[in-house]
Amino acid sequence: MSKPIRVTVWNEGVHEKKDKKVAEVYPQGIHGAIAAHLGKQQGIEVVATATLEQPEHGLTEAVLEKTDVLMWWAHMAHDQVEDKIVDRVHKRVLEGMGLILLHSGHFSKIFRKLMGTGCGLKWREAAEMERLWVVRPGHPIADGLPEYFELAHTEMYGELFDIPQPDELVFISWFEGGEVFRSGCCWHRGKGKVFYFRPGHETFPIYYDENILRVLANAVRWAATPEGSPYTTGAPNIKEPLNPIRGGG
Amino acid sequence: MSKPIRVTVWNEGVHEKKDKKVAEVYPQGIHGAIAAHLGKQQGIEVVATATLEQPEHGLTEAVLEKTDVLMWWAHMAHDQVEDKIVDRVHKRVLEGMGLILLHSGHFSKIFRKLMGTGCGLKWREAAEMERLWVVRPGHPIADGLPEYFELAHTEMYGELFDIPQPDELVFISWFEGGEVFRSGCCWHRGKGKVFYFRPGHETFPIYYDENILRVLANAVRWAATPEGSPYTTGAPNIKEPLNPIRGGG
Amino acid sequence: MSKPIRVTVWNEGVHEKKDKKVAEVYPQGIHGAIAAHLGKQQGIEVVATATLEQPEHGLTEAVLEKTDVLMWWAHMAHDQVEDKIVDRVHKRVLEGMGLILLHSGHFSKIFRKLMGTGCGLKWREAAEMERLWVVRPGHPIADGLPEYFELAHTEMYGELFDIPQPDELVFISWFEGGEVFRSGCCWHRGKGKVFYFRPGHETFPIYYDENILRVLANAVRWAATPEGSPYTTGAPNIKEPLNPIRGGG
Amino acid sequence: MSKPIRVTVWNEGVHEKKDKKVAEVYPQGIHGAIAAHLGKQQGIEVVATATLEQPEHGLTEAVLEKTDVLMWWAHMAHDQVEDKIVDRVHKRVLEGMGLILLHSGHFSKIFRKLMGTGCGLKWREAAEMERLWVVRPGHPIADGLPEYFELAHTEMYGELFDIPQPDELVFISWFEGGEVFRSGCCWHRGKGKVFYFRPGHETFPIYYDENILRVLANAVRWAATPEGSPYTTGAPNIKEPLNPIRGGG
Repeated sequence: MSKPIRVTVWNEGVHEKKDKKVAEVYPQGIHGAIAAHLGKQQGIEVVATATLEQPEHGLTEAVLEKTDVLMWWAHMAHDQVEDKIVDRVHKRVLEGMGLILLHSGHFSKIFRKLMGTGCGLKWREAAEMERLWVVRPGHPIADGLPEYFELAHTEMYGELFDIPQPDELVFISWFEGGEVFRSGCCWHRGKGKVFYFRPGHETFPIYYDENILRVLANAVRWAATPEGSPYTTGAPNIKEPLNPIRGGG
Repeated sequence: MSKPIRVTVWNEGVHEKKDKKVAEVYPQGIHGAIAAHLGKQQGIEVVATATLEQPEHGLTEAVLEKTDVLMWWAHMAHDQVEDKIVDRVHKRVLEGMGLILLHSGHFSKIFRKLMGTGCGLKWREAAEMERLWVVRPGHPIADGLPEYFELAHTEMYGELFDIPQPDELVFISWFEGGEVFRSGCCWHRGKGKVFYFRPGHETFPIYYDENILRVLANAVRWAATPEGSPYTTGAPNIKEPLNPIRGGG
Repeated sequence: MSKPIRVTVWNEGVHEKKDKKVAEVYPQGIHGAIAAHLGKQQGIEVVATATLEQPEHGLTEAVLEKTDVLMWWAHMAHDQVEDKIVDRVHKRVLEGMGLILLHSGHFSKIFRKLMGTGCGLKWREAAEMERLWVVRPGHPIADGLPEYFELAHTEMYGELFDIPQPDELVFISWFEGGEVFRSGCCWHRGKGKVFYFRPGHETFPIYYDENILRVLANAVRWAATPEGSPYTTGAPNIKEPLNPIRGGG
Repeated sequence: MSKPIRVTVWNEGVHEKKDKKVAEVYPQGIHGAIAAHLGKQQGIEVVATATLEQPEHGLTEAVLEKTDVLMWWAHMAHDQVEDKIVDRVHKRVLEGMGLILLHSGHFSKIFRKLMGTGCGLKWREAAEMERLWVVRPGHPIADGLPEYFELAHTEMYGELFDIPQPDELVFISWFEGGEVFRSGCCWHRGKGKVFYFRPGHETFPIYYDENILRVLANAVRWAATPEGSPYTTGAPNIKEPLNPIRGGG
């Protein structure tokens, strides 16, 4: 793929307005911090950032049309995302757009719609240590990482994570308080790729961490799908058989 | 599992009323034919049959409560199934109820909700021959089958079948007219098991075929889940860590 | 399966002879302790125990012929297992015998032959705490377990565990010292099932723990394969086509 | 990956010498035909071709060291490949080298070693038609292909194909004579990727077909692994825990 990968970073954008502490950590919003990093990566172009409060949540047909990979951060306002926008994003994923869900995005409508499960998990805010272990060292999303990396203070997410078994499991997290978590999970839906990445919180400065940022850029490159082969939707009636039919009786 | 597996057979039940030919093939309805067979199997008890026209489509809380495995045939009236009943069945699957989707059930709301994809496919009605090859001979659903079996006259379903890659692929079909199809597919969602089985049509007498009936009984036994380990839903806040926390800074 | 599942428990049996401490924990050997437990389970029959020092390591054609599930503990003497016995066990697994590898059995010839990878891992003996989390609560191997269980003092095994991604991942371990591990892994090879279960050590009394013993019995029940469908080996020449051939030119 | 992917094409090279008909179809050998095509692709560099008769079968440490992806065609002389060369290739795959097995390479020592199964299949030489259906249209190996493509005259390979269930299933073949086959299968072993591609025969001119050649180039690009994260082999003793240990008693 010689053309740059076109990324849109979506953020609910509610925490930043309601909570001064969040605004201090992410003065341009979580989407702004992520977009600023991705925009500097070779072969990646940030074509848009978008938030909940915009018309159509900033995810118009035109924006999605030019988006190869969509990144999604959300937490407080999952229910305020309109179903027709969720359906639009879903359709684009099946047609080949990559989708990267961050942190509390696990409970977003779009993630639950793609997974078919409840997507619940356990959580705790105790500023504890997390260590992410790479369990698939040849995976493109792990490219350039050490065998593990740490976050000194993070919110805990613990199993049972109610997801279909990942097609590819890249990271497992160890938490100081005693839990584990499947923190980097890949699935394929239609022609599109879906990656869920656990770390990230509105008050811990996770999206400035060097390893985290590397994962995000790697994930964008992984999630961008080539043109591929035709994706048939619906239920076409193929009246003319390709080979002669005589029945087997 | 020493207690019998309790099965409910659900059928849309529309074809049988509208089309005399269908009523001739299945005088007690497709559900009646399947229930009659399953009821004779050791270790299986049919606790209910149910159809679209019944109140709550016959799938009340009480019926689902006593159902270990639900079998689902549908074709013409997917959209008439109420969303709240779909949600109820979905919840039960995640909690551990087995679900077996038959033939045109691939486009049912419940299957699409569990898969997260479009679930489309190609089709043709030309009374052609189908040969089902077992590609996983140790799988319980293939128990007692020959290495392949044939249906002399059937409706064709062809790839691309728009599903997540099956967790377990049991059958691949060869069609006389030139197509192939992943005809026996297993997935796991929450604590529940889902099996899609392609053959079956309202005018071809598929559900009287000895091999097909064997697959249905095998699938019921496979789909019945043991008590298992606790299934956590929602997002419980685990305030008390299991191990002491000092942070990693 | 109404007949009892016939189990053979194989143990290298070297530690018990060389180390008084091990002999104190397991006076009848590790195999003896496991066999004693399994023999009391409904529907399970222990048909043999066997050790390295016996002729053909106790795994004669006759013993394997009557074995539905083979359990394997080994550590110090992997290289002393004769290749022809490994090939014999391998052949039986492909034909449908279940195989359960325990703890340091990860480096056995038979496990590496079935996996195709190096099967290495990290380890530490520091009597640390392990907590096993169930990540697939509907899996038969997790039947009757709580959402997690603990071992107060154990040897650590840490990622990267060099295995093919498991077909079914049942347990992930948290270790006090900071590592995680995929502790309960299922694979399918030919008609046979393979389960690797991490816990177990020659001096910690792991195989007396109630949850561990429950997993072993569950695993035996899971690994026992039904008769299934024919398993073709070799490369038979099918001279007569099933359908007429005219070529496509 | 801005540097070209370095490919070595290995061919047994026995048919071409023994059979005039084969030599006419492939005057430079099968390896020569494939190498000629790949060498013209952007971003791919053929660094070597190699055959059985060469010292170390042409697969010296030096050659493998500079090989990102190894392509393997073989049929008559699997047993003549030295075990130490098989082990060398195996080690390189686990460390990250891509391996593409062609056609009768299904019975090669290296494929069976990586799979852990028997790798048998059915076959027939009747110059019948094959139609390859894409069942994963977003997969890089299917890039630019139509939804299916045909080979007018080919050798048949039929199920049961005795392999571990593929991590990614890309193609299913339909054969005129009545069989089906999983024709394009991906696995991951260590840091390396393995792709098996069914078509290809010594007398049918398969490796001149436009779609086949596209698959080969796509497969090379897919199989080339990025640097990744460290791949730990062996069983290192991690004496110093990462976090403090107190035991759980």
